[in-house]
Amino acid sequence: MIRRDEDVQMLRPVLAGLRVLELGHYVAAPFCARLLADLGAEVFKVEPHGGDPVRDWGAKIDGQSLWWSMHGRNKQSIAIDLKSPRGREILLDLVEHCDALVENFRPGQLDKLGLGIPAMRARRPDLIVAQISGYGQTGPGRDRAAFGVIGEAVGGLRHLTDHPPGTSTLPPVRVGVSIGDSVAGLYAAFGIACALWQRDRGQGDGAGRTVDVALTESVLSLMEGMLPEYGALGKIKEPTGGAIATAAPSNAYPTIDGEWVLIAANSAPLFAKLAELMGRRDLVGAHGYDSNAARVARAGELDDLISQWTRGHDAATLVKLLSTADIPNSKVYTAADCAADSQYRARGMVREVADSAFGTVLQAGVVPHIPEGPGDVRWAGPMVGEHAPEILRALLGMTDADIRELKSEGVIP
Amino acid sequence: MIRRDEDVQMLRPVLAGLRVLELGHYVAAPFCARLLADLGAEVFKVEPHGGDPVRDWGAKIDGQSLWWSMHGRNKQSIAIDLKSPRGREILLDLVEHCDALVENFRPGQLDKLGLGIPAMRARRPDLIVAQISGYGQTGPGRDRAAFGVIGEAVGGLRHLTDHPPGTSTLPPVRVGVSIGDSVAGLYAAFGIACALWQRDRGQGDGAGRTVDVALTESVLSLMEGMLPEYGALGKIKEPTGGAIATAAPSNAYPTIDGEWVLIAANSAPLFAKLAELMGRRDLVGAHGYDSNAARVARAGELDDLISQWTRGHDAATLVKLLSTADIPNSKVYTAADCAADSQYRARGMVREVADSAFGTVLQAGVVPHIPEGPGDVRWAGPMVGEHAPEILRALLGMTDADIRELKSEGVIP
Repeated sequence: MIRRDEDVQMLRPVLAGLRVLELGHYVAAPFCARLLADLGAEVFKVEPHGGDPVRDWGAKIDGQSLWWSMHGRNKQSIAIDLKSPRGREILLDLVEHCDALVENFRPGQLDKLGLGIPAMRARRPDLIVAQISGYGQTGPGRDRAAFGVIGEAVGGLRHLTDHPPGTSTLPPVRVGVSIGDSVAGLYAAFGIACALWQRDRGQGDGAGRTVDVALTESVLSLMEGMLPEYGALGKIKEPTGGAIATAAPSNAYPTIDGEWVLIAANSAPLFAKLAELMGRRDLVGAHGYDSNAARVARAGELDDLISQWTRGHDAATLVKLLSTADIPNSKVYTAADCAADSQYRARGMVREVADSAFGTVLQAGVVPHIPEGPGDVRWAGPMVGEHAPEILRALLGMTDADIRELKSEGVIP
Repeated sequence: MIRRDEDVQMLRPVLAGLRVLELGHYVAAPFCARLLADLGAEVFKVEPHGGDPVRDWGAKIDGQSLWWSMHGRNKQSIAIDLKSPRGREILLDLVEHCDALVENFRPGQLDKLGLGIPAMRARRPDLIVAQISGYGQTGPGRDRAAFGVIGEAVGGLRHLTDHPPGTSTLPPVRVGVSIGDSVAGLYAAFGIACALWQRDRGQGDGAGRTVDVALTESVLSLMEGMLPEYGALGKIKEPTGGAIATAAPSNAYPTIDGEWVLIAANSAPLFAKLAELMGRRDLVGAHGYDSNAARVARAGELDDLISQWTRGHDAATLVKLLSTADIPNSKVYTAADCAADSQYRARGMVREVADSAFGTVLQAGVVPHIPEGPGDVRWAGPMVGEHAPEILRALLGMTDADIRELKSEGVIP
């Protein structure tokens, strides 16, 4: 029975009615706020007059970053000079109207501006505050400088994104995106939603809570058996290249047209199907191939065998052969493959979004999908301060004259 | 001003009062449920009589998986034969007592057992259901076989965990953990918390919602500017090895004692500090080094220069030099480094946990940290069905005689 989205009675987006203030820059806190905005929250992004520096990252057209179109979407931008007393006052006025706030300054920096948690909770006692930092808000290492890549290295991830020891003299690779930042942003969004539930539910406690997320800890939390196995056995988890340490065969295999195809045939029935496809039925049940442990022990040799076979086919043929046999597989997708994928398109996970700077922009859709009241891309990343007048009018009841005065004082641009 | 946890008035853990049913196996759904349990939810894990197959993964002592100690922690286990009518009846009885459910069967599989969403909502209309799958619950590709590695390949991540095109003939590497599964589990936990908030808050709608999470989409959502840049410019995001495509220098550099040290000196002031440390003050402001764009253009050459310098030091000395200069840096941490790190220890992020099978087990702590009411590790991963009697008594009001009968019928082991 296939459930179709059309059959579902429509409800409001799951975060409709939520107001969030973002004091974020670069990746982690802005990503957190995007997740909340995608699901229907009103997000007010407070930026310096020069804008979030991430607006300068990646490829641009006419000075406008394409990434920003997605990273800043669904948010309302207001630029405030937080070094001016009037600017700080406006920020605290805004706090009063918000349920939650997310920031990723270095620990203590907002306190120095007089905008620490005590000052904020004086205005909004039940404010949920998420603070994202490299190493966390407490402890002897909290003041150390950190970027996403540092979080990945200290979390244990960078050591593993490498070929097996002795295979290569090249350095371990980066994941290719700021995964430490994104995962930390996702943890912050999760923490905010949990704190809101406990605050606002029927038997809730009405209390403000703090969500203290460290990049390093967010990465470490994904490391599976690494710590337990080290603690009990002294075993240091080592990189395995394209393979999996505990199951074989699973790797990326080369094709005649220069692509890589991932094949995960790491169970007895899947391996039998693969051996059949390769014309090597003799391997099924043969000594040295007859258990997962045996296959793991000769994973390198097995990968060579499979590679010989895959090199005889182009990627499209290989994918068709493997899929027909119901063996988990996929071409290693590039941007072009993601953009063309029919499943992504069918679910709105790859979509064209209207953008005033570019006409339309190709963006990823909303995760998670909630069929009863899905999130949406309501607008693309705004210009710096684009929504200041409407925010100041709607939340703080300001008049046009008030707003002109703030401009003339240089509090807003 | 350093905020100390002791100053904070203690509240209940943020998910205290929440009841969740887990119908999970392997990584994604069980990871989601662990996150909820870590923050105080009561999680009832329903397993087949043979237990979740992940109990066999990774290193073991006396047949017990060390990873399981962490993966299964804070959960109550009940083993039920869902192929028996009585077993399915008990599952639906349990649903009636739960706020949310998370599962990661292949789409449609629970429907085939008569345990689809309509059957569950008939018993608990406001049930929040998170469904984690490879490609999502709808669309032409929903039935394709998928593992975590497939999600990573289709999400665009595997293409990027590689050296730059032409540098190496080895396949792109795996991240080393099932990152697609974990990120999907995190999205599911986030979606559940959001749905609970909208259901239960004062002006809430009391409605059950479905949280449809695909591994592929969870990964694709982290891909930053990849889709916008491809859509507008036809630019295909390519792997950059240890470096960052848009900022330099940032890489992992070799030391004389065979370690890698990550250095992120990718801003003008940080690069000046690094050049100073290297005794190369002449590079500061020099042509070809005087902007980030210029440094990115010669990133390879710059990395060679820095490597020559780092090869003259051992990792400990290098980290000391760089830290004194406040340049973001870290040794690329192994399991041993994580276990010994004083910041992790100070924050309880690396801790010894009591485990009846092992005495104690080294585990990662709880993310996010919520100082007003922190999560905790209340117990390590239980034996299969360990909590069945207390669950059946407390939730379903069963007597010892009822439970003996279920055993004799083979519904529970």
